[in-house]
Amino acid sequence: MDKSSVVHFARDQFLYSSSLESITIMIMAKKGDIAKMELLHGDPYDFEGPKWIHENIEMRSTGSDELYDYYRQTIRLPHLRARYAFRLTDHDGKVTYFTEKGFYEELPEVGLLFALPYLHHTEVFSAPEWVKDTVWYQIFPERFANGNKDLDPEGALEWGSAEPTPENFFGGDLEGVIDHLDYLKELGITGIYFTPVFHAFSNHKYDTIDYLEIDPQFGTKETLKKLVEEAHNRGIKVMLDAVFNHSGYHFKPFQDLLQNGKDSKYKDWFHPHSLPLDEQNLNYDTFGYVSSMPKLNTKNPEVKDYLLTVAKYWVEECGIDGWRLDVANEVDFDFWRSFRKTVKNEKEDAYILGEIWHDSMPWLRGDQFDAVMNYPFLTAILEMFREETLEPSRFAEKMTKVYHMYPHTVNKAAFNLVGSHDTPRILTECQGDIAKVKQIYTILLTFTGTPCIYYGDEIALDGDQDPGCRKCMPWNEEEQNRDMFAHVQRLIALRKDNPVLANEGDLLFVHIDPEVVMYKRESDEADAYILINLSDNEKELSSEEWQASELLYADSETKWDENHLS
Amino acid sequence: MDKSSVVHFARDQFLYSSSLESITIMIMAKKGDIAKMELLHGDPYDFEGPKWIHENIEMRSTGSDELYDYYRQTIRLPHLRARYAFRLTDHDGKVTYFTEKGFYEELPEVGLLFALPYLHHTEVFSAPEWVKDTVWYQIFPERFANGNKDLDPEGALEWGSAEPTPENFFGGDLEGVIDHLDYLKELGITGIYFTPVFHAFSNHKYDTIDYLEIDPQFGTKETLKKLVEEAHNRGIKVMLDAVFNHSGYHFKPFQDLLQNGKDSKYKDWFHPHSLPLDEQNLNYDTFGYVSSMPKLNTKNPEVKDYLLTVAKYWVEECGIDGWRLDVANEVDFDFWRSFRKTVKNEKEDAYILGEIWHDSMPWLRGDQFDAVMNYPFLTAILEMFREETLEPSRFAEKMTKVYHMYPHTVNKAAFNLVGSHDTPRILTECQGDIAKVKQIYTILLTFTGTPCIYYGDEIALDGDQDPGCRKCMPWNEEEQNRDMFAHVQRLIALRKDNPVLANEGDLLFVHIDPEVVMYKRESDEADAYILINLSDNEKELSSEEWQASELLYADSETKWDENHLS
Ligand SMILES: [Ca+2]
Ligand SMILES: [Ca+2]
Repeated sequence: MDKSSVVHFARDQFLYSSSLESITIMIMAKKGDIAKMELLHGDPYDFEGPKWIHENIEMRSTGSDELYDYYRQTIRLPHLRARYAFRLTDHDGKVTYFTEKGFYEELPEVGLLFALPYLHHTEVFSAPEWVKDTVWYQIFPERFANGNKDLDPEGALEWGSAEPTPENFFGGDLEGVIDHLDYLKELGITGIYFTPVFHAFSNHKYDTIDYLEIDPQFGTKETLKKLVEEAHNRGIKVMLDAVFNHSGYHFKPFQDLLQNGKDSKYKDWFHPHSLPLDEQNLNYDTFGYVSSMPKLNTKNPEVKDYLLTVAKYWVEECGIDGWRLDVANEVDFDFWRSFRKTVKNEKEDAYILGEIWHDSMPWLRGDQFDAVMNYPFLTAILEMFREETLEPSRFAEKMTKVYHMYPHTVNKAAFNLVGSHDTPRILTECQGDIAKVKQIYTILLTFTGTPCIYYGDEIALDGDQDPGCRKCMPWNEEEQNRDMFAHVQRLIALRKDNPVLANEGDLLFVHIDPEVVMYKRESDEADAYILINLSDNEKELSSEEWQASELLYADSETKWDENHLS
Repeated sequence: MDKSSVVHFARDQFLYSSSLESITIMIMAKKGDIAKMELLHGDPYDFEGPKWIHENIEMRSTGSDELYDYYRQTIRLPHLRARYAFRLTDHDGKVTYFTEKGFYEELPEVGLLFALPYLHHTEVFSAPEWVKDTVWYQIFPERFANGNKDLDPEGALEWGSAEPTPENFFGGDLEGVIDHLDYLKELGITGIYFTPVFHAFSNHKYDTIDYLEIDPQFGTKETLKKLVEEAHNRGIKVMLDAVFNHSGYHFKPFQDLLQNGKDSKYKDWFHPHSLPLDEQNLNYDTFGYVSSMPKLNTKNPEVKDYLLTVAKYWVEECGIDGWRLDVANEVDFDFWRSFRKTVKNEKEDAYILGEIWHDSMPWLRGDQFDAVMNYPFLTAILEMFREETLEPSRFAEKMTKVYHMYPHTVNKAAFNLVGSHDTPRILTECQGDIAKVKQIYTILLTFTGTPCIYYGDEIALDGDQDPGCRKCMPWNEEEQNRDMFAHVQRLIALRKDNPVLANEGDLLFVHIDPEVVMYKRESDEADAYILINLSDNEKELSSEEWQASELLYADSETKWDENHLS
């Protein structure tokens, strides 16, 4: 047994609360190294004379990646506290005990074991209940629909009359969204994520001028209020985008600092290294090196108060259901903790989603975010379908690795996407191969986490890296791929009708063919298998486990006979 | 190379801020597996065309334990952000790159590397500057000195006239401490840690009745104020003990709840499962299963406010310099974060020390504690000296493991102890072998961290597990081992005169003899070697590195000749 490959810490993805009275423990060990992994656990204060009272439970194998086997187990804590150790048996039957202080041949005294001193209710990670069943739809408001020509910015082009550029406008607005809520309801989505709608300069609106006003091109607070109401009437939640890492160039406090330098009362709103500000030789912190995106000083109580007021305002005033946080990883933890308290205080089941592209564990401990955007999912999808460099078994390993980087409670709320306003469209990534996109959407909509459809993907819109991926949504049905629409619609309906396909089910990868992605969704009520044939060949597959099951959905060429698929 | 034994996460002991503008990165790999460990790092936004600009620096080997080699390196961040990866070369010259997403043969795109998105000043761990040079002295006030007989509790026994029991009293008090501040100054200590002094029931005072009053047996607020003043005049800091996990049985809110059950306004101050409370069949949360120590509900804003008032009060009113937090691990993070803000707001350089016996990383991220009590240090010392089951090389491995469980910035503030009111006295652990205790104190006072002397150890007081370890301090010099006193005094003076022995120096273990504990303290100004001969045999040791160095201190039998020790 390779002891140095056994990894566990009593925190984060390795130890987390799975309910108010239980914890889940995860451990990883070198692939193929362990014959049996057991968990020994008990209350730290339970003794019979000198003997510590504890239980022994086998851990569940929950997948493997290239290097590790992963194991998880959930235990109840009657007194909300635990000490625990692992009992590892190798293939020769040799047993060793793994504790916080290392490896022992016999179980050492309880003081040397791993500890969960007390499970506090306030520290239980819990995304809002509604999130895990939500199917999101991302709208880039300037390009979704033009509902009010009177609001169009000067020089706005005719809808869809030109390719999108970084500067042009087509006049999309909130009334346009209201007009098409029935379309979204028909598709089946239950949540809209809007990229920014506040008063800003550009067509993408990430360069905020005023966080407390709707951009005049999009409408007014009344329009947003109406949109939220109409969406709620249709069972659709609404999430807005908060750009709190940096302001726009035309944000008044920044303009004041630019103009008044040392005399500006907004000196401490940003991070100047010296004054006056020098836009050429950047002497202040910015997003990347973009001089027009000055980083906000969220440690300044005034700034903090202002942004928290914003956070609360839109929930209170317009009833929005969640916030997506732009560049969330570059803002301090303390700010996000206060942000969470402010927002949840206003609306207990509001959703807080951070934009983070890398390992996000520090933000997902229950005190900051409910979820992050699952870019690793997108990366793995692209490697498998676009580059065709990732075989199904390696895809399984990659996703297994990602899903063991976080608590499973976190995974269920993960925001899965296959494209956004920041990436080329999935159809373009697949060189226009609509069959591939259909397969990708099948995975997206039957996977752990909550899926998000980037507006237009459902009718096979294409487009390269932005600005290409920000085309006007075509509303003429002849310009829409209605077959793709039906596919997505059907998958959403299946996900809704079969909770095992959403987040009632565990996900386990199965390998029966090197060219087939296959995974099992597993719940107490039902199991479901998803199979994706990546090859151009016909496949004949069968499994005894499929006995007496039914075919929920397949493309028209697939035949199903009892436990045989061809 | 064993890839599954390479462990790094972009957080905690693996990635921490070492100053306002720099971070230290730590990685561990299977012992003996890596020939060269390099760190590749750069700003995430620095590109020359498509090429990411980065630097390459070799990592410093900082020790080994039984299973792993550890490496650390510190890098400056001009823009407070970093992406990084590791370049590992094995003994065959084979190179691999380790990133957040796994192993690659070539350095992959920057988005796949480990990330430190932004180093926030508020997230830099920083214990108060004075702490790292402090030598602590722990006082159990009932047993240190009786300065005012008028305050003695009814039935108090003559000083030192009996063995301590869980119930008896000898009349120790704060005036007694004031009377002996010159003794402490003579010894050389620069900080006193007091076990609780607030109004309580027992002789140990951990069962608080009133957090806002000094126990009448000990004196008044005026006495404490005077004590702090007199201590400060002698360059001695004062730390009190906060018992916030649970109250005492006679705490008024608990008595109210006991008596009034459902009608008590203090229902939410504790954790009742049902009412009325049942002390026999415990139906409320307690410390362990001790019915007289009801757990406080620190999530209740009223309780939180009350305890934070207490925290602030004693800093403001009496000028204390720090808080030691009893059973700190069973109180919620959110409470400790508020506690830190409250205390530091009142006194910026106050010290916050948590009592935690297990892996304490979650409390040491800069937002909660400045340090925890280093019980693993005590455990390793006992295994080596008492049980003699730990050879010097294994001791080195154990301490190396502990010191890589935390950021090095944390280690420098760690509270090292070799005994307390909760453990048998070190002399008793060593079966009265004073030579061993002297060796142990030599290690304690030349080690990384801040040492604490348990009152009386310096004059060779003995005593078993409590109550035995809580004997009255003998003030008759004939009852004191003045030779031990001189030893401790000399070591403290050496530590003060040679910052390399305190926390200006790194610590590296050296092995030249299996029966000798040896380590090097290393700084820019000077190096120092500490050698402890565990055997009964004379040793002759020499090293070329000792050329032209001087013998600072040794027992009378040791001879020193240039670079030769015998
Ligand atoms: Ca319009
Ligand atoms: Ca007295």
